[in-house]
Amino acid sequence: MMANSRPIGVFDSGVGGLTVLREIEQILPREDVVYLGDTARMPYGNKSPETIVRYTLEGASFLLDKNIKLLIVACHTASSYGIDILQEQLPIPVIGVIQPGFELLMQSTRSMRIAILGTEATIRSKVYQNLIEEHYPKAKIFPVPCPLFAPMIEEGLVDQVFTKQIVEHYLSCLRNKKIDAALLACTHYPLIRSLIQETLGENVQLIEPARVCAEQAKEWLVSSSLANFQSTPPRYEFFSTDETDKFKQKMEIFFPVRHVSVFLRDWKSVNNLKSCNQTFT
Amino acid sequence: MMANSRPIGVFDSGVGGLTVLREIEQILPREDVVYLGDTARMPYGNKSPETIVRYTLEGASFLLDKNIKLLIVACHTASSYGIDILQEQLPIPVIGVIQPGFELLMQSTRSMRIAILGTEATIRSKVYQNLIEEHYPKAKIFPVPCPLFAPMIEEGLVDQVFTKQIVEHYLSCLRNKKIDAALLACTHYPLIRSLIQETLGENVQLIEPARVCAEQAKEWLVSSSLANFQSTPPRYEFFSTDETDKFKQKMEIFFPVRHVSVFLRDWKSVNNLKSCNQTFT
Repeated sequence: MMANSRPIGVFDSGVGGLTVLREIEQILPREDVVYLGDTARMPYGNKSPETIVRYTLEGASFLLDKNIKLLIVACHTASSYGIDILQEQLPIPVIGVIQPGFELLMQSTRSMRIAILGTEATIRSKVYQNLIEEHYPKAKIFPVPCPLFAPMIEEGLVDQVFTKQIVEHYLSCLRNKKIDAALLACTHYPLIRSLIQETLGENVQLIEPARVCAEQAKEWLVSSSLANFQSTPPRYEFFSTDETDKFKQKMEIFFPVRHVSVFLRDWKSVNNLKSCNQTFT
Repeated sequence: MMANSRPIGVFDSGVGGLTVLREIEQILPREDVVYLGDTARMPYGNKSPETIVRYTLEGASFLLDKNIKLLIVACHTASSYGIDILQEQLPIPVIGVIQPGFELLMQSTRSMRIAILGTEATIRSKVYQNLIEEHYPKAKIFPVPCPLFAPMIEEGLVDQVFTKQIVEHYLSCLRNKKIDAALLACTHYPLIRSLIQETLGENVQLIEPARVCAEQAKEWLVSSSLANFQSTPPRYEFFSTDETDKFKQKMEIFFPVRHVSVFLRDWKSVNNLKSCNQTFT
C-alpha cells in the first residue's frame, strides 16, 4: 500500500464524531477513513480522567493497527485528557478538537467574553480555560457543563418541548454575561445548534471546531505529501465496540451517507476482535 | 471465616442498586455487603445484550472472589439478560429483580392491565412480558421504554420544570389505557416516584421490587442456615470500576449511610485490580 493511500483514523466515544466526519467528507473527499466509536463504554463525559485516558489509548491502538496515516480524535472529552499522551506516544500525527476549537473561538470573539459549553469531564479538565488564559489573559471565560445534552441528543430528543427547557436550564446562567461567542465543545451539540442560538441570542456566535479540524488534517496531508489522489470513491469503514445495529440507526441521524461505500463492524473488545462484514447502504 | 459470616454481594451498573441496598439494610441489618457498581461502563440500558451479559459476568466473577454467599443483581438491565446464565454458572444462589418484580406486580393488579417502565434494553429483552404472558395469558401489558430517565436521575435533575415534562413525554401514552399497576423496572425510578404517580394518577399502584428482593434473600439465608447473627455493626464495602469520588457524591443522594462502617474502593478493570482504602463517613 502506498503511504498516501493509507486511511485517516477517526476516534470518538460514540456516534458524535460523525459530525466531524461530515466535514472530512467535504474537505478531504478522496481520503479513506476508518472510524471507531466506543459505544460499549460511552458516554465518556461523566467518567474519570484516568478511565478516559485508558479508553482513548485503547481506541488509538486499535486504529493504529488499521495502518492509519493520521489520527483525528473527534471527542472533546477524549481530546481534553488524552491528546498530549497520544501526541507523545503515537508514531503518526494526532489532531484533536481542542486546538482548532480554541483558535476559531479566539478569532471570532471581539469582546473577549466567551462561553465554553461541554460535558462535565471536558469542563472539569480546564483544557480550554488554561489555553485561553495562557494566550489571552484578559479574556473573561464562562465554562458551562451541560451533562444531559449528549444523552438527550443520543436519544433523538432534539425537538421536544422540554428540549428547549433543558437548554435553558443549563444556559440561562449566561444571560447578562455579555458574551459574544460560545464554543460548542462537544460533537453532539451542533445537533441542537438552533435551540442554543435561540437561548443565547443572535449576537452570540456559535463556534464548531469540526471544520477547522478537517482543514488542519488537509494542511498536514498536503505538506507531508500524504494526500490521497484516488479517483475511485473513498472507502469508509466503521467499527463500534458495541453491536452495530444501534450505531447504524444513529448514524442515519448524524451522518446520512449517500455516495460512499461503507462497512460496519463490531469490535468486541481490545483483546477479542470479532468483525462482521456488513455493507451499509 | 464461618460460612454464615460471608458477605452478600450486590451488583449494579452504577449507583442505582443502592435503592436495593437500602432495603437490605432494613430487612437484613446484620449482613455484611460487598457492592460493585460498574460506573466506568454505565449505563447498561442502551447497550447490546451480548455486551450486557459480558459486563454482568465480569462483575459477578469479581464479587465471587470476595467470597460472597449470595449474589443480588440489582440492575434490571443486567438481570434481564444475565440472570439465567448466572444462575446456571455460579456456585452460589443468585437473586435478580425480575422474579420479585413480576410477582409483586401480579399480586397488585386487579384489572390485569399493567405497565412496565424500564430502560430500552430491559423493555427490548421482553423478560417481563414473556413471564407475564406465560403465567397470565389474559393480562394486557403496556411496556414503556424511558431512556432518558436514568441519565436525568444520575444528574440529580429530579425536581426541574422539565423533569415533569420528560416524565409526561414517556408516560402520556399510558393515558386512557386503564392500567391499575405499573412496575418501576429500573433501580433509578423510585427517585422520581412522586412525579410518575402524578402523571399516571392516584389509581395506579407503583411497584418496586427492591423490598421483595431483600425478603427473598432473607428467606434463602434463613432456610439455608446462612444468616449472619453478628452483634457488631455490619461492614459495607463498595467498589466502583471508575473513580470513587463521583460514586461517593451520588451515594449521598441514593443511600445516605449513617450508622455503618463503609469502605470505598476503585476497581480499575477485571485484570487490574487497584484498591484504595478510604473510609467513607
